[in-house]
Amino acid sequence: MVTDQTRLMVDSIKRLLRRNAYPNLKNIVSKTHAADLSIVFGSLASPEQSTLFNMIEEPANKGLLLKELEEDIFLGLVSNIPLEEVVNIFKIMPSDDVAELVNKLPEDTANTILKKMRIEDSQQVAGLLSFADKTAGRIMITDYIALADYTTAKQAIESLQKEHCDVEMPFYLYVVDDYEILVGVISLRQLVVVPPDTPLKKFMVTDVFSVSTDTDQEEVAKIVARYDILAVPVVDSGNRLVGIITVDDVIDIFRSEATKDILKMAGAGEEYVETKSVLKSTRIRLPWLFASCVGGIIAVTVIGSYESALSQLAFLAAFIPVIMGMGGNIGTQSSTIVVRGLATGRLNYNEVWIVVSKELCIGLILGLIYGAFIATVAQFRYDSSMLALSVGLSLISSMTIAALVGSLVPMIMARINIDPAVATGPFVTTAIDIVSVFFYFSIATYLLGI
Amino acid sequence: MVTDQTRLMVDSIKRLLRRNAYPNLKNIVSKTHAADLSIVFGSLASPEQSTLFNMIEEPANKGLLLKELEEDIFLGLVSNIPLEEVVNIFKIMPSDDVAELVNKLPEDTANTILKKMRIEDSQQVAGLLSFADKTAGRIMITDYIALADYTTAKQAIESLQKEHCDVEMPFYLYVVDDYEILVGVISLRQLVVVPPDTPLKKFMVTDVFSVSTDTDQEEVAKIVARYDILAVPVVDSGNRLVGIITVDDVIDIFRSEATKDILKMAGAGEEYVETKSVLKSTRIRLPWLFASCVGGIIAVTVIGSYESALSQLAFLAAFIPVIMGMGGNIGTQSSTIVVRGLATGRLNYNEVWIVVSKELCIGLILGLIYGAFIATVAQFRYDSSMLALSVGLSLISSMTIAALVGSLVPMIMARINIDPAVATGPFVTTAIDIVSVFFYFSIATYLLGI
Repeated sequence: MVTDQTRLMVDSIKRLLRRNAYPNLKNIVSKTHAADLSIVFGSLASPEQSTLFNMIEEPANKGLLLKELEEDIFLGLVSNIPLEEVVNIFKIMPSDDVAELVNKLPEDTANTILKKMRIEDSQQVAGLLSFADKTAGRIMITDYIALADYTTAKQAIESLQKEHCDVEMPFYLYVVDDYEILVGVISLRQLVVVPPDTPLKKFMVTDVFSVSTDTDQEEVAKIVARYDILAVPVVDSGNRLVGIITVDDVIDIFRSEATKDILKMAGAGEEYVETKSVLKSTRIRLPWLFASCVGGIIAVTVIGSYESALSQLAFLAAFIPVIMGMGGNIGTQSSTIVVRGLATGRLNYNEVWIVVSKELCIGLILGLIYGAFIATVAQFRYDSSMLALSVGLSLISSMTIAALVGSLVPMIMARINIDPAVATGPFVTTAIDIVSVFFYFSIATYLLGI
Repeated sequence: MVTDQTRLMVDSIKRLLRRNAYPNLKNIVSKTHAADLSIVFGSLASPEQSTLFNMIEEPANKGLLLKELEEDIFLGLVSNIPLEEVVNIFKIMPSDDVAELVNKLPEDTANTILKKMRIEDSQQVAGLLSFADKTAGRIMITDYIALADYTTAKQAIESLQKEHCDVEMPFYLYVVDDYEILVGVISLRQLVVVPPDTPLKKFMVTDVFSVSTDTDQEEVAKIVARYDILAVPVVDSGNRLVGIITVDDVIDIFRSEATKDILKMAGAGEEYVETKSVLKSTRIRLPWLFASCVGGIIAVTVIGSYESALSQLAFLAAFIPVIMGMGGNIGTQSSTIVVRGLATGRLNYNEVWIVVSKELCIGLILGLIYGAFIATVAQFRYDSSMLALSVGLSLISSMTIAALVGSLVPMIMARINIDPAVATGPFVTTAIDIVSVFFYFSIATYLLGI
C-alpha cells in the first residue's frame, strides 16, 4: 500500500529532522518522487518544510514538488523562499505548470515574479492565464513539437535530438503548413519505421482530433478518453496550433470533475478543500444546508396545519419518517443515476422522456412493493385498515413522485445548460420531503375522515 | 458538442437504412470512429445493428466496435453473427480485449470460441481470465516490447520496425535480463537520441515502477496517475515481466471506479447498468431501499412509544422532518467528504481521529447556527420557549451525531478493509434518522414535562 509506505517515510524523515541528520535526509529527498514528497510535506511543520525544501538540489525537482503541493502548503512555503529562487525555479518549469502556480499566488507577488522572468517565458504564462479557467487554453502545454510538412523523417529525428530535448511528453509530432495551421500528426513510432527520406506529409495522419482554446476541460478529457489518444492538439480560432493537452492532465481532470460532482450532489461544496481550518469548511457547507432548513420550516407549516387531526390520531406522526425517508432515498437513486449517466455520456439530455418514464415505472413498482409492506406493518401495529391504506398510498405516491422529480430535474438542468449535479443536492430531496408529507396528510385525513 | 454530432449521425444513418442506401452507409461507417459508432448502435433495432455491422470491412474495425459496445448490444449482435466470424475477429484483437469480451459471453459459447482460436492466442486469453476480476493480471496487455539488456539502440529500432508492428502503444521499451526479469525501461524518445551503438543497459532507467499481477486495478490506476507515466509493467511473483497496463485503460478504471463510488453512496447499485429493462433496474435498487425501510419501521416504533405525548402536544410532530432532514444532510456531507478523500488519497485511514474530530466540530458549529434559527421559528410560531429549547437542542445533537457517524463509519470501514462507499449509502442516513427522532422526543418530553 502506498499509504503505509508514505507513513513510514514521514516517520523516518521526522526522526532525521529532529536529529539534524542532514546527509541522510538529503539522500532520502534525492531518491523520493515529488508526488510522494508532497505527501510528506503535508505532515510537517512550516520550518521543517523549508529545511527539507532547501535540501533539494535541482531547481527542476523543486519545481516538480511545488506543482504537487496542496495550495495552503505551497503558499506557506513560497512566502519563506527568496523571490529570486522562485523565479529561477519557474524559469525551467513548463509554462502550464507555472501558470497554475502563479494563479494561486497573491496578485502582487504574481506580478513581481512575472516581471522578473525572461520576457518570452512570462509572456507564455500570461498568455495561458488570459484564457478562462477550466478551458483548454488555460491548461494546455505550449512546449510541443511542430514541424513543417516538407520535413523528412530523418530531419525530424535530428530535430528531436537537438532542439526539442525539453519537451515534456513527445509521443506525437504535429505537422503544420506555412501558416502554422495544423494539417497532420505523426507518432514517434511511425517516424522510426519509415525510410529516412520520406517527407512527413507522405505518412502523416491528416484526420486529427483537435480542440479549440475555449473548449471546456471536461469536453477535452472526454475526447481523449473516447478516442484513446495520448495528447490532443489545441488550435486557435484560425486553426493554428497553439498547444497540446496530454493524457496525464486528462486523468487529473476526470478525477477532479468526479470529485466535484460527488461533492455537489451531497451539497458539500464544489471543490475538495484540503484545509485544517474548521471554520473554512463550515463556511462552505453552511449555505448548502439552508435549502434543507427552509424545506424543514415549510414542513413545519404543512404538518402544523393538520394539528387537530394529529391530536385526534397521534399515531399518524409515527409514519412521517418512513414516508420521507423512502421518498428521499429513491429520489437520490434516480437523480444520481441520471447525473452520472449524463456526466459519463451514457445518457443524452435529448432522451429526457425515455429516461424519465423509465424512472417513473421503477418508482411505481418499488412504491407498490414497499407501500404494501409498510401498509401491512401499519395494519398489524394499529389495527386500522384505513391507516394502512393511507400509509400505503402515501408511500406509493411519494416514491413515484420522488423518482419523477429526481430524474426530471437533472435532465432539464442539463438541457438548459445548468450543471445537473447541483440539482441533485439537498434541493431535490427537500422538495420531495415537503411533497411527501403533504400527500400523506391529505390522503390520511381524507380516508380517516378527520 | 459530441452528443449533438452523434444525434445527427444517428438520424442520418436511420434515414439511410430506411432507404437501403448501402453505398452511402458504407461510406459513413468506414469514416466513423468505433467509439462513435457504438453510440449509434445503441439507438438501432437489432436487425439494423447486424446490417450496419456487416458493412464494416476490416475485421480489426469490427473488433474495435465490439469492444466499445454496451454488454446487452454486444451479446445480441454476437448471437446474430456466425461463430467463425467472431473467431476471426478475436484472432486479431489484443488479448486483454478478447478476455474482456469472452468473459461477457455465455460459458458454452466462450469455450467453443476459445477452442477455435489458435492455441497460443486462446492460451493467452485463458491466461488473463485465470486472474481475479479487477486485478492487474486480468486487465493487462500481453503485447509489449521487451528486449535483452545487451541489445543496442540501433538493434532496438530495427526490431521495432520488423517484429513489433502490432504492439498497441509502444512508448516504452522494457529491458529484461536472461531470466525475463524486468531490469529497466527506456522511452522510445531516448532510443532515438543516443548514439546507435549504445547498449540498452547503458541508458535504461533502472528504477522502474511496477505492479504485480494480483494488484487491485484501482491501485494500478493510482500509481499511473501519481507518477504521470504512460504505462506500468506487470510482473509475476518471480519479478518476471508478463504484461503492461496502459494509460488509456487507467482512464477507464478511474471513471468506472468513480461511478461505482457515486452509485454505492446513493444506494443505486454497484455498476452503471445500461439497460432498457425496468425490471432489472428495479431488482438492483430494491435491496438498497430495504435498509431505509427497516429504519422507517424502527422510527414508527420509537415515535409510537411517545403517542400520549403527541396527543397532548400534536405540534411536536411538525418538527420531525426538519430534525431528520438536517441530520441526514450534514451526515451525507461528512461521509461524502471522507469517502471521496479516501478514494483520491487526500485522506489516510490512519488519521481517523483528526478527521472525525474536525467533522465533530463542524457538526457542532452548524448545529448551533441552525439550532438557534429553528428554535427562533418554533418560538414565534408556537410561543413556547420550552418547545423552542427542545427543538434547538435536538437539532444540535442530531447534527453533531450525524457528522460524527457520517465521518467515523467510513473511516472505520476503510481501516478494516471494507469499501467505505457502501457505508455511506442509505445505512448511515437511516441510522441518523432513528437517533435524531429518539433524541428529539426524549428531550422534548423531558423539557415539556409530558
